[in-house]
Amino acid sequence: MTIHLAIVGIGKIVRDQHLPAVAGNADYRLVAAASRNGRVEGIENFGTIEAMLAAVPSIDAVSLCMPPQYRYTAAVQALEAGKHVFLEKPPGATLSEVEDLAARADAKGVSLFASWHSRHAPAVEAARAFLAGTRVRSMRVSWKEDVRQWHPGQDWIWQPGGLGVFDPGINALSIVTRILAQPVFATEATLEFPENRDAPIAATIRFSDADGLDLLAEFDWRQTGPQSWDIEAETGAGTMRLSGGGATLSVDGMTVHAEPEQEYPSLYRHFAALVRAGRSDVDLAPLRHVADAFMLGRREMVEAFHD
Amino acid sequence: MTIHLAIVGIGKIVRDQHLPAVAGNADYRLVAAASRNGRVEGIENFGTIEAMLAAVPSIDAVSLCMPPQYRYTAAVQALEAGKHVFLEKPPGATLSEVEDLAARADAKGVSLFASWHSRHAPAVEAARAFLAGTRVRSMRVSWKEDVRQWHPGQDWIWQPGGLGVFDPGINALSIVTRILAQPVFATEATLEFPENRDAPIAATIRFSDADGLDLLAEFDWRQTGPQSWDIEAETGAGTMRLSGGGATLSVDGMTVHAEPEQEYPSLYRHFAALVRAGRSDVDLAPLRHVADAFMLGRREMVEAFHD
Repeated sequence: MTIHLAIVGIGKIVRDQHLPAVAGNADYRLVAAASRNGRVEGIENFGTIEAMLAAVPSIDAVSLCMPPQYRYTAAVQALEAGKHVFLEKPPGATLSEVEDLAARADAKGVSLFASWHSRHAPAVEAARAFLAGTRVRSMRVSWKEDVRQWHPGQDWIWQPGGLGVFDPGINALSIVTRILAQPVFATEATLEFPENRDAPIAATIRFSDADGLDLLAEFDWRQTGPQSWDIEAETGAGTMRLSGGGATLSVDGMTVHAEPEQEYPSLYRHFAALVRAGRSDVDLAPLRHVADAFMLGRREMVEAFHD
Repeated sequence: MTIHLAIVGIGKIVRDQHLPAVAGNADYRLVAAASRNGRVEGIENFGTIEAMLAAVPSIDAVSLCMPPQYRYTAAVQALEAGKHVFLEKPPGATLSEVEDLAARADAKGVSLFASWHSRHAPAVEAARAFLAGTRVRSMRVSWKEDVRQWHPGQDWIWQPGGLGVFDPGINALSIVTRILAQPVFATEATLEFPENRDAPIAATIRFSDADGLDLLAEFDWRQTGPQSWDIEAETGAGTMRLSGGGATLSVDGMTVHAEPEQEYPSLYRHFAALVRAGRSDVDLAPLRHVADAFMLGRREMVEAFHD
């Protein structure tokens, strides 16, 4: 049975990733879109999710891709209408609202998927398997990119709830929480806020686990040279390096896993499997670590940021 | 069967509340204490929880009352030694570490209790019952006290993880999340940080729920006149006022419930019931709302605070 899908919040990530992934998956038929400004050619378009849900009763599932600050209200409408829901990352502006969505999905018997696309990067499962067979002594996460290149003029990421540098940084945390066998928790954090912004432009979080793991994560949006999305671990079986945002795994300098990037096709395969199995997948650990870092962290004021 | 109890972190709250509550409950026998500085007369005292657990194998359960930043390590030791654990509030410095403790307690088959003493204030259950029978239109939380009076020289509350004004404020949130029938979530917050401190001295959080509830919570540690620990709600059945930190319930100005305060005796009765039933009680909603407010909130710098 084909899943009749609608997408809400038509922007860059939808055009670049969601539309091609859905078009390439025979499990789905894209039947409608809703957006304040964007449009998708060849299907019915609406200005709001309410109008769309009222006009197209055949919709089985919706993907919510608007900024996280606006996701909860749309998700409640979709869930209460009995639709399965795919949430882009981060799944919401607060942990509490996503907990509520998960309870509502359970009550309605529909699937909720809080997606973390970086967990579907090519070498993530290989890294998880490698770490499962050895002892991790220390880990360093280096997630440093140029915000002007990757998020030009995206005001919402600087607003409260937009998470600032944690918008990419949460991708690293989604990988770390997948590849480590044991849960970690923040023990110290420093968040650097531009004096004219309400979200951090850089952050450092120190994590540990019950066995005293030494894990340092550095996030920076001011990186103008080579960009880095790397996770390196010293282990009993050598130095593991997961680079390129999860694309390539190497051990002691030798590449052991590299495949073409297929994050969004993999996400949509997983969502279809959830819908068919009548299950949800809502792991809030990455967002919880961000919230913990905000709660636990020291704040430093740094130079104003202008786009 | 008497529960052999040990208390860790002997300070003001232990002397004022825990020791009298335990002494008045025949389910418990206090057998040991561990603390860096404090002592309890008439029982064995130790400098560390490790030393205590090693020396007194008859301990069944421990109450952890040190500052939250130090609670996780002690809790892991107690849980791994097969002891039931009572956590003072807040249960930890991060949500993630408490999630880990809950998983460990489950794995070991022991009880973990993340206590919220204000939920055991005399009129809280009466307020819950009142609200269950009516529609809540709006709610105001006013938690305003003089930090110099209530937390003199307590440096840990100003340090990262100490939560600042949310140390009392989380009591209000523990009541709100108990008396409302439906979950709420923060939609806006402002946190005021003294320029010389790493924790907020005041905060305002606006919450809503799926039905658009208008809930405003104001926390302030700079209140030098009358102190307030009040929750007021406009409802279909009149104006509800829960005042004195949950002590007294009135409706349209008429007192409908007031009893002597019994918070800690009630907490220890509940903990004994959990231990006997082999259950845990770990509701992180109050701490999650604080983390959400830190993540979502705007920061404002205010006048330095000197004790």
